[in-house]
Amino acid sequence: MTRVAYVNGRYVPHHSAQVHIEDRSMQFADGVYEVVAVLNGKLVDREWHHERLERSLGELGIAMPMSRAALDAVVDEMVRRNLVDEGIVYLQVGRGVAPREHTFPVHVRPSVVATARSARPASASTLIEGVRVVSTHDQRWERCDVKSVALLPNVLAKQAAAEAGAFEAWQVDADSIVTEGTHSNAWIVDQAGAIVTRPESNAILSGITRRRLLAVARNAGLPVVERAFSLDEAKAAREAFLTSTSSFVVPVVQIDDNVIANGRPGSVTERLLALYLAFASS
Amino acid sequence: MTRVAYVNGRYVPHHSAQVHIEDRSMQFADGVYEVVAVLNGKLVDREWHHERLERSLGELGIAMPMSRAALDAVVDEMVRRNLVDEGIVYLQVGRGVAPREHTFPVHVRPSVVATARSARPASASTLIEGVRVVSTHDQRWERCDVKSVALLPNVLAKQAAAEAGAFEAWQVDADSIVTEGTHSNAWIVDQAGAIVTRPESNAILSGITRRRLLAVARNAGLPVVERAFSLDEAKAAREAFLTSTSSFVVPVVQIDDNVIANGRPGSVTERLLALYLAFASS
Repeated sequence: MTRVAYVNGRYVPHHSAQVHIEDRSMQFADGVYEVVAVLNGKLVDREWHHERLERSLGELGIAMPMSRAALDAVVDEMVRRNLVDEGIVYLQVGRGVAPREHTFPVHVRPSVVATARSARPASASTLIEGVRVVSTHDQRWERCDVKSVALLPNVLAKQAAAEAGAFEAWQVDADSIVTEGTHSNAWIVDQAGAIVTRPESNAILSGITRRRLLAVARNAGLPVVERAFSLDEAKAAREAFLTSTSSFVVPVVQIDDNVIANGRPGSVTERLLALYLAFASS
Repeated sequence: MTRVAYVNGRYVPHHSAQVHIEDRSMQFADGVYEVVAVLNGKLVDREWHHERLERSLGELGIAMPMSRAALDAVVDEMVRRNLVDEGIVYLQVGRGVAPREHTFPVHVRPSVVATARSARPASASTLIEGVRVVSTHDQRWERCDVKSVALLPNVLAKQAAAEAGAFEAWQVDADSIVTEGTHSNAWIVDQAGAIVTRPESNAILSGITRRRLLAVARNAGLPVVERAFSLDEAKAAREAFLTSTSSFVVPVVQIDDNVIANGRPGSVTERLLALYLAFASS
């Protein structure tokens, strides 16, 4: 099977999928993206991803490149042509191609790129054993609510985590409060037994899995609190975990050198993963 | 004449110059760039641009894509093939093309793109009448010393300036201290007559024109002080100006609604432009 990508109106072999060197995503990080999970051949929470894409574009003053129905058709076609039953679709929309000037070009068409690939959300050992995260200083810009491709700080933090043998970095602000991971949201179960994650603001991305997990947890009658928590509170928490589109719910059993509780994935985390999977595969 | 671009080892027509959609500059802003001025067919301060390129790449852990001599040959060829006597060369080096993962890929070749075009540094009216800048909150990340393509915050600030009818935005930190413009460094002549610009740090890019102007000013025996200054001090300054590779030295005659001195380019600014041009055209 030849992998197929979508680039500005055409389906092309992935290996030869190209954009112009003056695409503004390339020269200015002037674009946004979404990663949508595919489970049992179905797109998970595609409506929410679409809403977030529209919001990100709106915040940057980029027009929607096509109607929602047309964009849905592209995404569906990516799943179909790449035979994805379990995996992800990546969709990137940029301001377009224009001679290099910082100011927004006029009369430019937004550029659209999509790829898809089969992938497992997380290995069985990751879910059974949990993962380690390391804390890093959050040095990103002040509009992390916009899902832009200006991901260089995330790349550097994630690489530092990988070099420390960790699964992810939990970024921490100047007051030692956890913001989020580099491609995931951060959660704890606090000493009172509440499921805690940071409320939405410009400091974090409004994760779709985060949002869905809040809904399924509340629906199951579990105690959920949206509040910021410190790195110290996280290290002393009953449980910790992270959420992302591509890995769903992953238990965190160590933060820096600090083992969380007994060093095994917590029961609340396991219940939340089960609830999430029940929703996403339904 | 057909404009020619350089892309990963090949000279190609500019209009068909392309990179893969999984170039990490495109998906992660994982790359750096330089803009070098050409004056009288000569590259201005190319050694310093090369040094800065090496430093930016080093900070991101990206290898130099080729020897300095080879890179110089590419840049020279861009000037020659595009018949640039007065203009700029744009050079972008990224971590390379790899399946999308935040962590650094292994065994990947850095990608190299170069373009060139003829351009005047600044219009005569800009130099004679000066320009207006507006202040904006600096919402960028904490490593502005790295000349990365993660320029989305700069794009947004510059666009806000353009929509306010201004030439540039002067970004201001939480303490109302001026950091720099979106593609230029900020300067004043203070009440004591000293030429003032902010010292190098992670908060600003070490501009090559900034560095050169410091050298020519000191060489001419003019009083120069590297220190931070507030927006209020700038508004009350004797003179204000900005420097950049593409526009050299541009007088600033208004900041927000505040006219600087008598609203005309200052004599020190004019002298500095003359000194800079004398150096750059020599």
